[in-house]
Amino acid sequence: MKAVIARNKSLVVDDWPDPEPKQGEVLVKTLVCGICGSDLHALNHGEHFVDLTRRGGGALTYEPDKDLVFGHEFCAEILDHGPGTQKLFRTGTRVCSLPIAVTESGVQGIGYSNTYAGGYGEQMVLSETMLVEVPNGLASDHAALTEPMAVGAHAVNEAEMGPNDVALVIGCGPVGLAVIAGLKARGLGPVIAADFSPGRRGLAETMGADVVVDPKETSPYSQWADFGVPQTSMERMMVEMMGETPRRAIIFECVGVKGVVQQILEGVPVRSRIVIVGVCMETDHFEPALAVTKQLDLRFVLGYSQEEFAGTLHMIAEGEIDVAPLVTGRVGLEGVAQAFEDLAHPEKHAKILVDPTLV
Amino acid sequence: MKAVIARNKSLVVDDWPDPEPKQGEVLVKTLVCGICGSDLHALNHGEHFVDLTRRGGGALTYEPDKDLVFGHEFCAEILDHGPGTQKLFRTGTRVCSLPIAVTESGVQGIGYSNTYAGGYGEQMVLSETMLVEVPNGLASDHAALTEPMAVGAHAVNEAEMGPNDVALVIGCGPVGLAVIAGLKARGLGPVIAADFSPGRRGLAETMGADVVVDPKETSPYSQWADFGVPQTSMERMMVEMMGETPRRAIIFECVGVKGVVQQILEGVPVRSRIVIVGVCMETDHFEPALAVTKQLDLRFVLGYSQEEFAGTLHMIAEGEIDVAPLVTGRVGLEGVAQAFEDLAHPEKHAKILVDPTLV
Repeated sequence: MKAVIARNKSLVVDDWPDPEPKQGEVLVKTLVCGICGSDLHALNHGEHFVDLTRRGGGALTYEPDKDLVFGHEFCAEILDHGPGTQKLFRTGTRVCSLPIAVTESGVQGIGYSNTYAGGYGEQMVLSETMLVEVPNGLASDHAALTEPMAVGAHAVNEAEMGPNDVALVIGCGPVGLAVIAGLKARGLGPVIAADFSPGRRGLAETMGADVVVDPKETSPYSQWADFGVPQTSMERMMVEMMGETPRRAIIFECVGVKGVVQQILEGVPVRSRIVIVGVCMETDHFEPALAVTKQLDLRFVLGYSQEEFAGTLHMIAEGEIDVAPLVTGRVGLEGVAQAFEDLAHPEKHAKILVDPTLV
Repeated sequence: MKAVIARNKSLVVDDWPDPEPKQGEVLVKTLVCGICGSDLHALNHGEHFVDLTRRGGGALTYEPDKDLVFGHEFCAEILDHGPGTQKLFRTGTRVCSLPIAVTESGVQGIGYSNTYAGGYGEQMVLSETMLVEVPNGLASDHAALTEPMAVGAHAVNEAEMGPNDVALVIGCGPVGLAVIAGLKARGLGPVIAADFSPGRRGLAETMGADVVVDPKETSPYSQWADFGVPQTSMERMMVEMMGETPRRAIIFECVGVKGVVQQILEGVPVRSRIVIVGVCMETDHFEPALAVTKQLDLRFVLGYSQEEFAGTLHMIAEGEIDVAPLVTGRVGLEGVAQAFEDLAHPEKHAKILVDPTLV
């Protein structure tokens, strides 16, 4: 089959061995697959990416200097069933799947594997137990957004936000937008969103952010008083003495760039919770004593559960999350390399979809 | 009165204006007061200490280049009642108190204030609302340990540890020992404790640690398998597939030295919670992507609530926490400066008490 192969830190369209489903697996045709920022990093810094996963007790164990096919945000159609499958869904059914292949020798990441090709190719092999059927009538393009939106749902769940709390989303790329959507779908907020890019701020508003801030003009950390969040321990104490539960600030770090965590530590009120969703790949610095004085809670989150994944697909299908505005581009296999370049410009794009049938 | 005055980064015994109780305040005689590691830092790096508190939304606002009397871990005896007091406790009653003076113009830290002298002096003025009576029969020496032990109780409460979880305490100075005591008093654990000092490891055992580790011989992070804590996401997934709740590692960072947080990030299993109780006063470094991959929760904690303070005093009085082994030295006012020097040697001391009547 044809696929976009990551080879020597480049993306080339070439032949890849036709995938064959083994025990418990199904063969699918890729309908559409989103391009994720993690793939950009994995292409250019493969050794670092795999080393981090290994040290982090993760499941990705591919060899980055060997060929692989990226793509883990996909919607696909079942072509055939391998041996030992329950045939839960018939041929022709459209499915999403957690990008995980469950094999006898352990799990592999679909799209981060030297054997399991991801969605930047014409076909894939998926584990039947990981499939979720796309509800009738939902466009494949929108179903493909399940994976990145599930990242937002998981971050929101891990935040354990109270009904009285205020959310601040720092960075409105695909991850930040998924968090905003996840918050609004659950009726949480108010949601303040901050990004330097006017285009991304526009998308943040579209996804439901209540207040949108350009950090060049206004500090994202200047809004606490307006929302009644006590900032100092004295202010908190006074609210508690009135018998009330103080409003808490919940900050979602969705930038993943060195220095942002320290900025957040400086800007947040005492007793804030900071959910780190952005992945900063460099060694970062911070002042622990400042975090201690403010009694901050830093929760580092990743991925999603099977329930969060399936739940997100259904929220998209039921219109509780509108992902249409997030799709800002569409390319065939030959266009993927250029799309990787384009995604470096935050103003222009949120999510670019790969459609292997597009020429 | 006589007091140990912090003046030009030195400790001198000199005269301090006799304290006079104002609205809602009582005058007390200091019976005994513990020396805290924070005082060592505040003496040598006063500007940094106050600046951090200010930036952290804290309540300490003294001028470090002016005279002050340290000491916030005390047991005292009521000498007189100021105007507007309820006289809840009669003259002669022994009390502990949160080291907070509640005044009309805000709060001040007792022992971190240019006006409210702490326990390294013969007398103090305390706010009546902050007092807790020492239960009959409890030695004043042991009551004075309430404050540092309450720090441990607070850290344990904030850890929200499950009955199935495993605790690892890194660093067995006074803070680590208070955490061990807090864990054991609540029946939590098993508790693994690590310290380079044999003396402190001995105290950790005395306080009830189940396993004590010398990091020079054995990595504190080598014990997970023995206690059945799954380390990787795959191992966790397998436990969950068996319908069980995976054991979680809860790490208490009680060292407060640069580099320890990153060591913990490297050594802990996925999904661990790290409670930062030690106060590292320098800018520190860490790998955020490692924390993301492991989905770690870093909770920075400080101080205690009024309930935790009062509860700790009663646990000490009822013998649920035995603080006697923690007292390793006793000095008069003239001995405080030398005691500050001695506390730099972890092998020799845990807690040195100041007794102003001692010559």
